Formats: sequence, C-alpha cells, structure tokens
Amino acid sequence: MATLRPAILDAALRACTRAQTRRPALRNTVQSRPQVPCRTQRRCISDDARPPLPRGTPGPSKVVAPKTRLAVGVVFIGTLIYSMATGDNQPPPSTDTPPPRSGQQLDSPSIADRDSLSKRESGVTARSPMRLRMEAFIKENQQEIVRALEALDGSQRFQIDTWDRPNGGGGISCVLQDGKVFDKAGVNTSVVYGTLPRAAISKMRVNHKALDPDVESLEFFAAGLSLVLHPQNPMAPTVHLNYRYFETANQDGSTNAWWFGGGTDLTPSYLFDEDVIHFHRNIKEACDAHDKEYYPRFKKWCDEYFSVKHRGETRGVGGIFFDDLDETEKDQESLFAFVQTCLGAFLPSYLPIIQKRSDMPFVEKEKQWQQLRRGRYVEFNLVHDRGTAFGLNTPGARIESILMSLPLTARWQYQHEPEKGSREERLVNILRKPIEWV
Amino acid sequence: MATLRPAILDAALRACTRAQTRRPALRNTVQSRPQVPCRTQRRCISDDARPPLPRGTPGPSKVVAPKTRLAVGVVFIGTLIYSMATGDNQPPPSTDTPPPRSGQQLDSPSIADRDSLSKRESGVTARSPMRLRMEAFIKENQQEIVRALEALDGSQRFQIDTWDRPNGGGGISCVLQDGKVFDKAGVNTSVVYGTLPRAAISKMRVNHKALDPDVESLEFFAAGLSLVLHPQNPMAPTVHLNYRYFETANQDGSTNAWWFGGGTDLTPSYLFDEDVIHFHRNIKEACDAHDKEYYPRFKKWCDEYFSVKHRGETRGVGGIFFDDLDETEKDQESLFAFVQTCLGAFLPSYLPIIQKRSDMPFVEKEKQWQQLRRGRYVEFNLVHDRGTAFGLNTPGARIESILMSLPLTARWQYQHEPEKGSREERLVNILRKPIEWV
Repeated sequence: MATLRPAILDAALRACTRAQTRRPALRNTVQSRPQVPCRTQRRCISDDARPPLPRGTPGPSKVVAPKTRLAVGVVFIGTLIYSMATGDNQPPPSTDTPPPRSGQQLDSPSIADRDSLSKRESGVTARSPMRLRMEAFIKENQQEIVRALEALDGSQRFQIDTWDRPNGGGGISCVLQDGKVFDKAGVNTSVVYGTLPRAAISKMRVNHKALDPDVESLEFFAAGLSLVLHPQNPMAPTVHLNYRYFETANQDGSTNAWWFGGGTDLTPSYLFDEDVIHFHRNIKEACDAHDKEYYPRFKKWCDEYFSVKHRGETRGVGGIFFDDLDETEKDQESLFAFVQTCLGAFLPSYLPIIQKRSDMPFVEKEKQWQQLRRGRYVEFNLVHDRGTAFGLNTPGARIESILMSLPLTARWQYQHEPEKGSREERLVNILRKPIEWV
Repeated sequence: MATLRPAILDAALRACTRAQTRRPALRNTVQSRPQVPCRTQRRCISDDARPPLPRGTPGPSKVVAPKTRLAVGVVFIGTLIYSMATGDNQPPPSTDTPPPRSGQQLDSPSIADRDSLSKRESGVTARSPMRLRMEAFIKENQQEIVRALEALDGSQRFQIDTWDRPNGGGGISCVLQDGKVFDKAGVNTSVVYGTLPRAAISKMRVNHKALDPDVESLEFFAAGLSLVLHPQNPMAPTVHLNYRYFETANQDGSTNAWWFGGGTDLTPSYLFDEDVIHFHRNIKEACDAHDKEYYPRFKKWCDEYFSVKHRGETRGVGGIFFDDLDETEKDQESLFAFVQTCLGAFLPSYLPIIQKRSDMPFVEKEKQWQQLRRGRYVEFNLVHDRGTAFGLNTPGARIESILMSLPLTARWQYQHEPEKGSREERLVNILRKPIEWV
C-alpha cells in the first residue's frame, strides 16, 4: 500500500493539525455561503474528539443524541449485505434480538460475545478472527481518510456520530458539510451482528454453498466502510467507495460462510480524461497486484451495476465493483489482502484529482450542470441502488447514515439537453457507452 | 363546478392574454435568477401554439423532437394504471403493438380504431363512450389550468410537448420552469391504448371481478391528468393532483371493466392553517356533493398513501386519494361526475393560496428549509410512489414526463433538525401525526 501512496498524501497527513492547514479562500464562489461553524445542536463533536480508536478497546463510544441511541436497527447493513436478498425490498434479517440458536447451543456465547471477550483479552492481532481484523482495518482507514479530507478541506471539521448496538457492533458516521472543498463528504463504518432466518439462508446459498441449509437460523456478522464525497467545484468529481465483509457462524462460533464485496467509482460533471485515467490506473494497479483478471472483470461489473437504467446512462465513469468473493474465488487471506490494497489505493487515486480541480474557475452554467448531474446521482441512489433500498426498507435503520450519500443540493430541469459538441454532451455520450480508460 | 369557482379564477381566465398579465416584480428575491426566455433548442412552442383543442378533432398534434417521436412507450401510464400490478416493478402491459385479439375477432377494429372513427364522425358528446368523454374532459381542464397558471406566473410560458402514439392515444406535457411564482409547474395529460396480458388480468381481478378471466389478453384504455406545482416562495405550498380513468374492452369493443382513480394533496414547507383548511374544505365540499363518506374515507387513504415510510412522515398535509372506483362503488355516470367535480375544484382550492403566499417576504433560512422539504418530496416520489416506479420500469416510457414531478432544486443536509418550538418543528410534528383539518 505504501508504494501506492503519493508524497502529497503523506504531506497532507503530516499537516493534519487544523490550524496549520486552513488555506486562503482562493476559490471562485458562485454562491456566497457562510462558513457555518459546528453548532452544538447539530451534535458536532469533532472539536472534542477524534474518530474513535479502532483496535482492541471498545473505543470512545459516544452516544450523542437520543435519536442516535434508538438506532438499534441495521445501519448501513443495506450496503453491507443486500446481496443476501435476491429480490429488492425484502424484509431484512433480524439484528435487534439476540440470535436464537438451535438445540444444545442455546447457552453457548454468541459470536458478538466471543468477539467482545477476545478484544478485551488480547486486542486484535493477525491471529484474530477475520471479523475483528476487518473491523479494525476499516476503522483505521476511516480515521486516516477523515484526517486527510479534513486537512484538504481546511474550512470544516467532520461531524462524528458514534453509537453502539445492544447486541454488539455499532457504527461511526463522519460527515463534513458545506465545506470549502466539499459540499458534503460522508465516511461511515458499520459493524452488525444479527440473525439470518431460514428463508434468507436459502437465498444466499445460491452464491455460497458453504451455508448450512439445515438450520432454522444462522448468526451473521457484517462490517463495512462506505464513503461518498461530493465536491463543491463542478470540475471536481464525486467519488464513492464501499468495502465490506460478511460472515455466518457455525453453532460453535467458528466461521461458516464468508465473503467480501465492494468497489469504488468516479462521477464527474466535467470530464478530464487525465483524471479518469489516473483513477482507473490506480485501481487497476491495486487489482493487478492480486490478479490480472480482477480489473477487467470488476470494471465491467461496475459499469453494469451503476447503471441509471431509466436514463440509459451509467452513474459515472466507473471504477470497480465486486461481490460474493469467497473461497470459490480465493482463500480468505488473499481476498482480505486484495480488499486492503483496494482501500489503501483510495486516497492516492482521488486526492491528486480533487487537489487539482477544487480551485479551478467555473461559471454559473457549469455549477448548474453539476447540479443536474447530482440529480441523476440521486435518481440512481434512490431508484436503483440495492443497498439503499435494502436500508430504507429496514425498520429502525439509521436513515441519516444511509442517505448521507445524497448530495447537499441537486436539480431537475425539464428536457435539459447539452448543447451539440459541448463538454457536457461528451460526458453524456460516454455515460451512454462506457469506454476503457486504461 | 361553476359554483365552486371564485371570482378570482374567472378574472384570471379573462385576463389570460399574456401581455396584460405581466405583473411588476414585487417579490422578495433571495437568489437573483435571470428570467430565462423560452429557447428554441428546448423546443418551447408555447409562443406559437396553445394547448391542443380537446374535442372531436384530433387537434394540432405537434411532434416536437425526434426523441419525443420515439416515446412510444407508456407515458404517465405509471400513475394511470399502476394498480394493475399488485407487486411493484412489474413489467408493464404492452402498449407498443396492436392488441392481439382472440379467434374470430382478429379482423375487427381495435377500440383505438373505433374511438378514432367516432371522433372523426361525430365528435365527443354526452353519448360518446366514457373513454372519449374522459379524454376530452382532462384535455379541456389541462387547457384551463395551464391558462390560469400562466396568467398567475406572469413571467414564463408553459413549454408544451405533444405527441401521438402509433396505436392511438398520445400525450401533452405542459411545463413551466424558473418562473416568478413557480420554480416548476407540470400539467400533463396522457391517453394510452394497449393490451393486458393474462397475468396482469389475473392480478387486476382481485379488485375488479368484471374482468374476463378466460381470455389470453384484453385491450385496455387509460387516460389521466397529472399535475405538480412547486412554487418559488417557501411560504407557498407544493400541490399535486391526478385523476385517471381505466377501461378494458370486450372483444366486440364494448366496455368490460372500468374504474376511476385519483386525488390531490398539498405539501407546504410552512404551515398556514387557514390555507390547509381552505384546501381541505374545498375538497370536502366537492366530495360531499356526491357522497358524505367520500371525504373522510379518501382523506385517510391519502395520508396512508403519501407516507414517506423511511422517515415516519407523510409527504404533506394530505387531501384525498382513491383508486379502483368501479360499479361496485357507484354507477359510471355518478363516478365521472364525482371526478369532474374534484378536478373542477382544483383551481378554487389552490389559486387563493398561491396568490396569498407567492409575494410574501422570506429569508435564506426559510428558503433552505423549503429545499430540505423538497428533498423529502424527491424521496417519496423516487422511493415510494408506485406510479413513478411503474413508469420508470417501463421500457420506452417518456422519462421527462414522469419526472416532471421532481422539484427544480432540492437539498439533503445531514442530521438537520428543526429548532425546538419553531414553525419548522410544528410542521414536522403534524407530518408525523396527521390531523383532521375540517
């Protein structure tokens, strides 16, 4: 991972003290917006606390509002485990009650109990279960990304909401809003322990034969990091990323089925070929380090998944997307290493782009085009994204975390069509017929 | 109907010559927006043509763009006939191919042919089939509403897109955008002739026993008017209305099953109780004129239907909603008369409100609150509205007509919560627990 990281990021990380990184207000401002400071009623706690420590200790789990305290349902589980339901809008698996376990195992500890004990006793090491390693890994990366983005934006801190779930697990939502570089930036992690009913198990067996078909229910674990950044400047692209791990447990607490999923994709309003090439090259390098077939395969999957079908367009210029990578693909260590490389490649793939574009001059017409494209982003996320649909249909889900992916503002203009030969038209042409970038 | 119409509307209609109705720019402008004139590339034809004449003659059917010409799929049929599919996202019935008819009837004319002939020969009279009467009625009302709104806005004309469908029927989309009073106002009519496959017939029989279960397919007809107005001023409420008629034909062209559906509902960002009471009282009077049970029954149905479930809120302060009103409810003439009264009550129910609110002063914070509420409107329409989902899943549908219901602009702010005791909080409380207004 270190070799993939440019000096610019290291510099950003070193220069992470906020006071040092406030930059002069150089950018072209179309709308004069006040630099809204963190307000207590918005439960901005970033002046007091850093994102919680990921390793070993339960971390500074700060329940910041009564509403948050009620968020006992599935948080970001939509994105994490939508693949369990082959049909959309399926009722989600239970995550609110302690997992019922069959027969003689009723008194044995749940995997949540086991993991909690293991963390307290020995922290998280390379010998820990993958559940704990993945959790530690995503929280660590969340911290790193939040720091880098905060340093980059310079004007706003991330608002950090942390909560525990009654049966183990919890979430950390970090959102920066109305910043100098970002209109809205959300970086969330979520860890869920729950129970899969028989019907869900049957459906998941289509992709995962390791799942035991002869039980009434199975304990499951899901952990993931999700990120969506909507920049202020229309020349700078929106980016999305999500990496997740899913596991079911045998009755003795050992791992039954498991898989990884995730990906990252870029959504520009204006095409700078060099940016898209940089982004794709970076992901391709991350993929190639593990398997030369990954990039072409997952690039295609990405174009297919992020399709705004009713518009006949892709959401953006793609990236990679994959799901259900389990033992039939590669061993667990290899796949974890792959996901680690992918997530590690994120900042180097995006920071140079946002740094190059966020101070570019632009005119009102270009801002409006960005807003129209944001409208399409909303259409994809609310109409087609299986993860969002799953989350929204989950009673008790933390809606604010699920919908942090929506842009701060968006626009719908009847019958808007880009002018012939314009940059806007070129973008749309490429979204209608995705091309190879590297 | 005439008794329900206030003098204000008659005045508006009399004063409909645009040159006479341009009003001085008195309103509070938070954002200075250019008064964008109709541009030819946006196919604004309202400088040259009025909405087509509804009666008898086929009307000035003007195909205004190649894209429009391709819109042979289901246009606004989502809203018109989603009730035929009990599950969401069902593939829609065919509307592109001439209806296949069973056995000896293969050579007999389709209902589209019959209607076309009937219109040419004798126009539309009280003795015409309900299909033609409903079509004429909605087109007449579309004209009237468009004229009144154009007169009210004073700054912009409606862009009018008209198209025919190859097998009969067609649509007229009227959209006014970036006006003085309205951010976006869409008034659409749509007429569809098509074929219901056996599976769709089986589903529809749940609500309509008159449907013949022993045929492979049935010709159908659907016609409706849909309207969504998003005002510029945050003190003025958004309003939605839709009235529709659906019919299937026997093999000899006579009417088989038929029903009416529709409703209207108000979505304020700021509550003026007197406005909501006026709106509801008006609808209640329209309902009461036909059946004293209609208003309470359809008011409840409205609150249930327009529920943004994942937010635990209704979309707005309601109105009425009904569907599947057929011969088990009342005879066809009575129900048509009811729908006529309801649609006739629209302008008197809304014009006094918009006229009172569209020049009120407001501040930036109030505009932002309106934008946040618009975000919720988008969430309902894209996530929960069955008509929109049905339309978006229909290959070849005219997406721009379906999504004209979306506001010009919207906003999503992480964890925004209204201040304690504020007007914004009062609105949200009422949306969480709908109340009786009259």
